[in-house]
Amino acid sequence: MLFILKEATSEKKLEQVREVIKEMGLKYHLIQDGKRIKFFIQNSNPKQNGQIKSLEQIDYSEEINVPYPLASRYVKNEDSIVKVGNIEIGGDKACVIAGPCAVENREQLNDIAKELSGLGVQLFRGGAYKPRSSPYAFQGLKEEGLKYLTEVKEKFGLKVVTEVINTETLKEVEKVADILQIGSRNMQNFDLLKEVGKSKRPILLKRGMSATIQDFLMSAEYILAQGNSQVILCERGIRTFETATRNTLDLNAIPLLKQLTHLPVIVDPSHGTGIRELVAPMTFAGIAAGAHGITVEVHCKPEEALSDGMQSLTPQQFEKLYYKFNKLEAALK
Amino acid sequence: MLFILKEATSEKKLEQVREVIKEMGLKYHLIQDGKRIKFFIQNSNPKQNGQIKSLEQIDYSEEINVPYPLASRYVKNEDSIVKVGNIEIGGDKACVIAGPCAVENREQLNDIAKELSGLGVQLFRGGAYKPRSSPYAFQGLKEEGLKYLTEVKEKFGLKVVTEVINTETLKEVEKVADILQIGSRNMQNFDLLKEVGKSKRPILLKRGMSATIQDFLMSAEYILAQGNSQVILCERGIRTFETATRNTLDLNAIPLLKQLTHLPVIVDPSHGTGIRELVAPMTFAGIAAGAHGITVEVHCKPEEALSDGMQSLTPQQFEKLYYKFNKLEAALK
Amino acid sequence: MLFILKEATSEKKLEQVREVIKEMGLKYHLIQDGKRIKFFIQNSNPKQNGQIKSLEQIDYSEEINVPYPLASRYVKNEDSIVKVGNIEIGGDKACVIAGPCAVENREQLNDIAKELSGLGVQLFRGGAYKPRSSPYAFQGLKEEGLKYLTEVKEKFGLKVVTEVINTETLKEVEKVADILQIGSRNMQNFDLLKEVGKSKRPILLKRGMSATIQDFLMSAEYILAQGNSQVILCERGIRTFETATRNTLDLNAIPLLKQLTHLPVIVDPSHGTGIRELVAPMTFAGIAAGAHGITVEVHCKPEEALSDGMQSLTPQQFEKLYYKFNKLEAALK
Amino acid sequence: MLFILKEATSEKKLEQVREVIKEMGLKYHLIQDGKRIKFFIQNSNPKQNGQIKSLEQIDYSEEINVPYPLASRYVKNEDSIVKVGNIEIGGDKACVIAGPCAVENREQLNDIAKELSGLGVQLFRGGAYKPRSSPYAFQGLKEEGLKYLTEVKEKFGLKVVTEVINTETLKEVEKVADILQIGSRNMQNFDLLKEVGKSKRPILLKRGMSATIQDFLMSAEYILAQGNSQVILCERGIRTFETATRNTLDLNAIPLLKQLTHLPVIVDPSHGTGIRELVAPMTFAGIAAGAHGITVEVHCKPEEALSDGMQSLTPQQFEKLYYKFNKLEAALK
Repeated sequence: MLFILKEATSEKKLEQVREVIKEMGLKYHLIQDGKRIKFFIQNSNPKQNGQIKSLEQIDYSEEINVPYPLASRYVKNEDSIVKVGNIEIGGDKACVIAGPCAVENREQLNDIAKELSGLGVQLFRGGAYKPRSSPYAFQGLKEEGLKYLTEVKEKFGLKVVTEVINTETLKEVEKVADILQIGSRNMQNFDLLKEVGKSKRPILLKRGMSATIQDFLMSAEYILAQGNSQVILCERGIRTFETATRNTLDLNAIPLLKQLTHLPVIVDPSHGTGIRELVAPMTFAGIAAGAHGITVEVHCKPEEALSDGMQSLTPQQFEKLYYKFNKLEAALK
Repeated sequence: MLFILKEATSEKKLEQVREVIKEMGLKYHLIQDGKRIKFFIQNSNPKQNGQIKSLEQIDYSEEINVPYPLASRYVKNEDSIVKVGNIEIGGDKACVIAGPCAVENREQLNDIAKELSGLGVQLFRGGAYKPRSSPYAFQGLKEEGLKYLTEVKEKFGLKVVTEVINTETLKEVEKVADILQIGSRNMQNFDLLKEVGKSKRPILLKRGMSATIQDFLMSAEYILAQGNSQVILCERGIRTFETATRNTLDLNAIPLLKQLTHLPVIVDPSHGTGIRELVAPMTFAGIAAGAHGITVEVHCKPEEALSDGMQSLTPQQFEKLYYKFNKLEAALK
Repeated sequence: MLFILKEATSEKKLEQVREVIKEMGLKYHLIQDGKRIKFFIQNSNPKQNGQIKSLEQIDYSEEINVPYPLASRYVKNEDSIVKVGNIEIGGDKACVIAGPCAVENREQLNDIAKELSGLGVQLFRGGAYKPRSSPYAFQGLKEEGLKYLTEVKEKFGLKVVTEVINTETLKEVEKVADILQIGSRNMQNFDLLKEVGKSKRPILLKRGMSATIQDFLMSAEYILAQGNSQVILCERGIRTFETATRNTLDLNAIPLLKQLTHLPVIVDPSHGTGIRELVAPMTFAGIAAGAHGITVEVHCKPEEALSDGMQSLTPQQFEKLYYKFNKLEAALK
Repeated sequence: MLFILKEATSEKKLEQVREVIKEMGLKYHLIQDGKRIKFFIQNSNPKQNGQIKSLEQIDYSEEINVPYPLASRYVKNEDSIVKVGNIEIGGDKACVIAGPCAVENREQLNDIAKELSGLGVQLFRGGAYKPRSSPYAFQGLKEEGLKYLTEVKEKFGLKVVTEVINTETLKEVEKVADILQIGSRNMQNFDLLKEVGKSKRPILLKRGMSATIQDFLMSAEYILAQGNSQVILCERGIRTFETATRNTLDLNAIPLLKQLTHLPVIVDPSHGTGIRELVAPMTFAGIAAGAHGITVEVHCKPEEALSDGMQSLTPQQFEKLYYKFNKLEAALK
């Protein structure tokens, strides 16, 4: 049940409502939606609802019948903005996340970071822990990779987006990550979702390969329900019958998600296509569809990359993309 | 086998090559690719190849190992442009096709045509023959529909795009249609493809719901092989597990097709989403992905439409889309 | 609307109902469902319904709200049996259709027919007209193929199942075919469905590659609505992300279709798998799932087949399959 | 690289090979394939290969170029049999796993266990930890559920199959589980796969909703590579465009997997269909396709089940299925 407070409820009166709910032993979510403050309570009974509703501070209440209430526009209509340093994700300006698929060694990471930093990129991606389909494939440098990420972060003043693959290493990864990424294969690793729901870091949640929009939003709800409201959704392609591309980038998901949820939605044209030449056009398509940002794989020597070389851009290719991206963004306003 | 003539081969010398090939009893396709003239022959034997290759007019020859040679960039690298009156499809300017799903009655068609014509739309769509999943659904006005299309065509000076669903009615439809549309369900109706391959009209070929890119190009090849080189490809969404949208618009197909084929590629955001609110963002996405044009469903009273009302725009909604479309197009250059 | 006559309505009284409906200018379908006779009328208005319902011969009426009324168990609950000579499809005994993908030449067809006939096979398949994805692939022997089919039919006393791909050649194909096959790519070629709906021949309707169960039944409805009630449904695999097999044979469809429709349902493990070694186990699986029969591709020299060689069995392999098939069928009773 | 020892190599000589490999610092897998003993080494270099190959005990060596060597028939051709008490999975007799989706309370579990035990079922399933798409859905009784499972296990002499959803609770679940189940959503939770790869318990690995056969086998390889060779594969349906059933049970996977791997393959017709009435026919279909067993959901009051009620059988329905299952199994031999 959602309880909407009267406009201009004082901090003191707000506290009173809070107290009443706490005394009932109920868990609540406090939501600031534009000028309104709202309480969302998942498990209240009709009697409790009646009592809360009768409080003078409550304007009205609404029953929410969607399987992902906290993620939905029904509970919060205003767009959510996730802040990372002075960067805002979900607002008017589309964000750019770029970097290699994986951290491979100190030099590789430094070279890419230098190039991207020089182009004005502020959000740097790179995986220290890599979930791979084959047990014999490169699984990431792990702690060593985190160390190199820390180095480039400090050296170039970058914010880092990096993947966390299990609860055991979450604390370690959190020390370096400005944004924690949950990969496609872990989109329904519910234990991991719960744990990152308790983190202070923003979460970049990638859509699962066969996840419906509803599945995707319910996974976001897992994180929100634990109290972490800084969730960024990422469309990265779904699995279909088409094999000419690595995945089928479902850009319909961008405007549809924006209709259903207040959370920022970004797009990953690298995994969404798997083909270098398609990354730029699909970046532009994603932005034109309304995405709040992009995440793109860049590697100084794609032909030597330990993973995803086929879909990685060189810094030169990325520079061209970035130039046109900025031009397009301006036109879309 | 593809035979490339020397540059600046005179008309007379070209005629000599033609004669030699004809005498061998071979069927050929003459292709103008930029400054070069090429002969593509499907079924020649090694001996014949040797004889043709030895002609003085021939510069060199190439074996083409792709299942859709005529559609491929290997045979013709230069972008093909389909001309309809003074409109060019496949060139620098993206085309706009708009109109109702079906011709429903004289007044309905006139009203929409008037509105769209007033906005500057030159290519008008509307089905007189409607392939429908249910035998009890509205199947189109047929001949009567063609009559109304003829009327608006003359009255407003529009060019008409309309669907042909069988070989029996092809001659009738050809009289009205400036562009013949082959619908998704007929993308592998090979008999129909062969017949429109003999038509003088340009063909708008829509991708089948479960057609791979290769299937799609092989269907185009059916038309090209019959001698009709004016084929426009249309991405209109594929069938996937996602049910929140009517289809999954596969925009990856746009840059991928442009890489593989010289044929123009347009996008249908109406069928590709099935949801009115998603049509505008996916139009922009399609254009940003590089599409040579769009086809959009417009209806003055979408809530009364006999088919596809959920995905039809009002003229007012279309006007907004059209304004932003033009702005975006300019920015992308 | 469905009108159910009283039990033991005399032929004379039945005729009276018929007359009333005819006078109203309504088209009807007369259905024998076990002991009951029913009239199904698609487009009657409430007033007409009232009049018909008030006739003394009418027991009761029912509104049918399913998009495929004639195909549904709501209109006819009793299993339909399609008779071809003395063979019953849809009854207790599963039928076996076997033969090559395509008629390739007189000798090839004769050899296979001889082998299969010797094993007791009565229903022989083979395509004279072949819809092929590529315009350059073998498209069938056409009229010549029909001639060879006629020869083996007479020589070995076989019943023939062969595909019809357009309305132009329907009359020709009908002369030879004991069962007319509509291929997957034509499942939504609605014009063709309407034409075969007027034929006296039973129709073997194959499921489209991306057809839902509802699409499939609506396509059957197209045929039934024209008066041809002898429709056999065939599950032959759908298109999914899995590429290790040619298609994904959806055996769930077998019991599900049997729940929804009275029409016989058979299975095609050859196209459903595309891999010779999988044909036998998937035949058994289909029968165990409740299929009313199978259709299997057999070729004396699969390695030389002009189409579908990879999925064709040799007569020896088929013999083993047939032996186990019979054993299994007995056990399932 | 795979090294095949000479037949009749003595234990002492085998030990010598082992020593050589150990001294090289290589990790190896010792495989008994019929009468032959083999060493599989993943990361040896050419020089090491030469040295090992030159040992007198080595008959010959083979390079294995498949992404799932240990799971493949190339490394081990003989069918693997997983033993649970006196039950063999993967041998001639198909196994039967039955029980509720989730452990709901002591009484519910006891009632079902009693019924199934009375029918002769030896392998009992039931989840104490439930991964659910919604954070607000019933997530299982957890430790309490494990306690009830322990009780019925002891009371009725059953072997228990139960799901493990994370590494934290693995030790707890292992105490109760005779077979550890890895659910579909965790098929690519590689950390969890590695941990159960170190367990002494057999693993029931369910196919992911969008996992190809190759993905599935690579996930099995994760477990095998850690030293646990007791892996049972379970086909449980994939996600496709068809929504009339919960999933599309891909029975093609059964004979295909049996061709590619020596591991036992069972089928889950409950999740594979999601519809009670389809469970029995699809059980029979699975067995006819060659599955080594089934896992079926049974609940005394399906209408009150906290999860998967729509697809659960009553004990009476299960009894009928079980009777026909046994009859069918006999016929298939």
